Amino acid sequence: MADWLAALERRAELRAKAGLTRRLRPRGADDATVDLAGNDYLGLATHPEVTAAAAVALRAYGLGATGSRLVRGSTDVHHELEDALADWLGAERALVFSSGYLANLGALRALVQPRTLLVSDAHNHASLIDGCRISGAETVVTPHADVSAVQAALAAAPGRPAVVVTESVFSVDGDLAPLARLHEVARRYGALLLVDDAHALGVTGPAGAGAVVAAGLAGAPDVVVTATLSKSLGGVGGVVAGPAPFVRHLVETGRTFIFDTALPPAVAAGVRAAVGLARTRDDLRAELADRAAVTVRRLRAAGLTVSTPAAGVVSVTAPGAEAATTWAEKCREQGVAVGCFRPPSTPDPRSRLRLTLNAGVPRADFERALDVVVACAPDGARGPRVGVVA
Amino acid sequence: MADWLAALERRAELRAKAGLTRRLRPRGADDATVDLAGNDYLGLATHPEVTAAAAVALRAYGLGATGSRLVRGSTDVHHELEDALADWLGAERALVFSSGYLANLGALRALVQPRTLLVSDAHNHASLIDGCRISGAETVVTPHADVSAVQAALAAAPGRPAVVVTESVFSVDGDLAPLARLHEVARRYGALLLVDDAHALGVTGPAGAGAVVAAGLAGAPDVVVTATLSKSLGGVGGVVAGPAPFVRHLVETGRTFIFDTALPPAVAAGVRAAVGLARTRDDLRAELADRAAVTVRRLRAAGLTVSTPAAGVVSVTAPGAEAATTWAEKCREQGVAVGCFRPPSTPDPRSRLRLTLNAGVPRADFERALDVVVACAPDGARGPRVGVVA
Repeated sequence: MADWLAALERRAELRAKAGLTRRLRPRGADDATVDLAGNDYLGLATHPEVTAAAAVALRAYGLGATGSRLVRGSTDVHHELEDALADWLGAERALVFSSGYLANLGALRALVQPRTLLVSDAHNHASLIDGCRISGAETVVTPHADVSAVQAALAAAPGRPAVVVTESVFSVDGDLAPLARLHEVARRYGALLLVDDAHALGVTGPAGAGAVVAAGLAGAPDVVVTATLSKSLGGVGGVVAGPAPFVRHLVETGRTFIFDTALPPAVAAGVRAAVGLARTRDDLRAELADRAAVTVRRLRAAGLTVSTPAAGVVSVTAPGAEAATTWAEKCREQGVAVGCFRPPSTPDPRSRLRLTLNAGVPRADFERALDVVVACAPDGARGPRVGVVA
Repeated sequence: MADWLAALERRAELRAKAGLTRRLRPRGADDATVDLAGNDYLGLATHPEVTAAAAVALRAYGLGATGSRLVRGSTDVHHELEDALADWLGAERALVFSSGYLANLGALRALVQPRTLLVSDAHNHASLIDGCRISGAETVVTPHADVSAVQAALAAAPGRPAVVVTESVFSVDGDLAPLARLHEVARRYGALLLVDDAHALGVTGPAGAGAVVAAGLAGAPDVVVTATLSKSLGGVGGVVAGPAPFVRHLVETGRTFIFDTALPPAVAAGVRAAVGLARTRDDLRAELADRAAVTVRRLRAAGLTVSTPAAGVVSVTAPGAEAATTWAEKCREQGVAVGCFRPPSTPDPRSRLRLTLNAGVPRADFERALDVVVACAPDGARGPRVGVVA
């Protein structure tokens, strides 16, 4: 009976030997660590207008939404947020989910009909991979950012409904998908395009509307956009934006929408305020772009292997899983939080530090944090390049 | 290219003709509707201690957790909440997810090894069904609450790892699974038992610790409990509780845990306060039990077909989908919110009103709401019984 626990313990030991142990490290409210790890790109999670809006809704509605959206969980705040998101993204309608993960599961399942082929980028996020899986549709995984491979996959399935599935700014390496070319190929074959814009929303595009808008695809009838409300918008939750009949279909049939408790009204209100701020703060986006350029320059000058970021995510190659863990730990000891990405959280066997930029971190702290990342780098991270970086 | 939207519109028309349209109806902060539809069983979503705790954490941490739990999203508040939940549930460890849906997906996938057989109750919640699906494991669906069928399924798979999957209080009809007998059968065959205690937590069991504790299964090494933080605890999120090696396994390998933004600290803090309240408020549980008895008595006396509730969920049979919709709408016009459950949100073709009880609703309002439900009942709901109710 307890065999299963012994088996789990053996697997934990194997992970430990491979340097793949993961530990939760709680932070306190007084935590002074410099953030090079979170996704609060514009620093809006702690913006006074955001927290004030959340506090007002908390007093007005209470904590939870007390039910699913179709039963008791829809408040005026949810609908205002959805209208604001649709307007910003140039979509007919937007629908909020309680997480980006559930938004992707819901969107993918809703896009699949009998015989649909899904064409999914090899670097896609776990939630997109799981969405493909849960949809039950045949899925072809194409090499990362390879438009020709997508075209070949579509050409090999003539007459079948198909959906091309991609992130815009990829979560691990921070590079940008060739969205316009993917859309061109998808349209040529009558396929739809699903773009997870989580790491671009608020960070790129006109008024921060994201990479889909920047690629000129806003409002296209064959494009569906998903995103999170937990990154540049500083809250939690997810959104699916697209043509009105598709969003109606999600409301009426989407299992991860229907059978899930709604986002707390206070979160919806805070995110609504964040949308208003994000649309107008080109200054924060300029600061973020500058920091991305500085990060790449400084780290490459130190001999590190660094990705070319399209937004606020920069990936730095580590010589191995244990080296990545030690590197991240040394940074933490120096007061700098960095992401440590090791297999299987990476799309290939290469371990990385993931640095994410936050325009709300004071510039001097940010500069010092880069010094720490460089100073703590293991020898193997410098000099001869380890692996290939896009 | 827009063919897919035309196809979705045709499907929407078919749903409309069958009386299966679903519409979002936002409520305002000043909404005076009497709640017989939400899941805030103890009325804690608006409890001043809950909202005050959330407000304190909102000021201290900001709105979002700014990252996944392993990267940046773990705060002291999350860990305090997890300790409090584990203590309450009598489990070695508890792990919080951003939704109950993701908790179920994560728990089921983590329980599956090669060749695992899942034995799933026919009335299980969508998130359990999807968890079975996403796990990739062979799944046998057994008739509702049928211990013999579970035993037969296990007996037919000798030597294979197996997991029996059930809700405790079922979400649609509010009846209780035979947990002790299910556990006995599972143990006899070396199988594990996964119980979704969402609708029992806070409502049943000693100190409101739920149906698993009430069945004497707390801390059993072959039992895993999942629940939501969005029902009696008045917030949002989910929890998986069980043996420490299993929870460690989830932390290190659970995709819906690892690749998802953490619960906002303010929500974790509010729910933490709600746990403290829920443990002590036997008075609210007594009130809830009394209201459940009164509801059944009054509705049966009026000739309606009513389930026998084990907690705060009461199901009332409607003569059809359109009749259910009309019934619910009439109630709403009279200021009473009731749940309206129609296929495919029901485990069988029978449409129901779902009444959920909230001890925070003033007693007089509750009594009036029952009058409204009876007065608005369609003729077909009375008299000769429609369908079979457990």
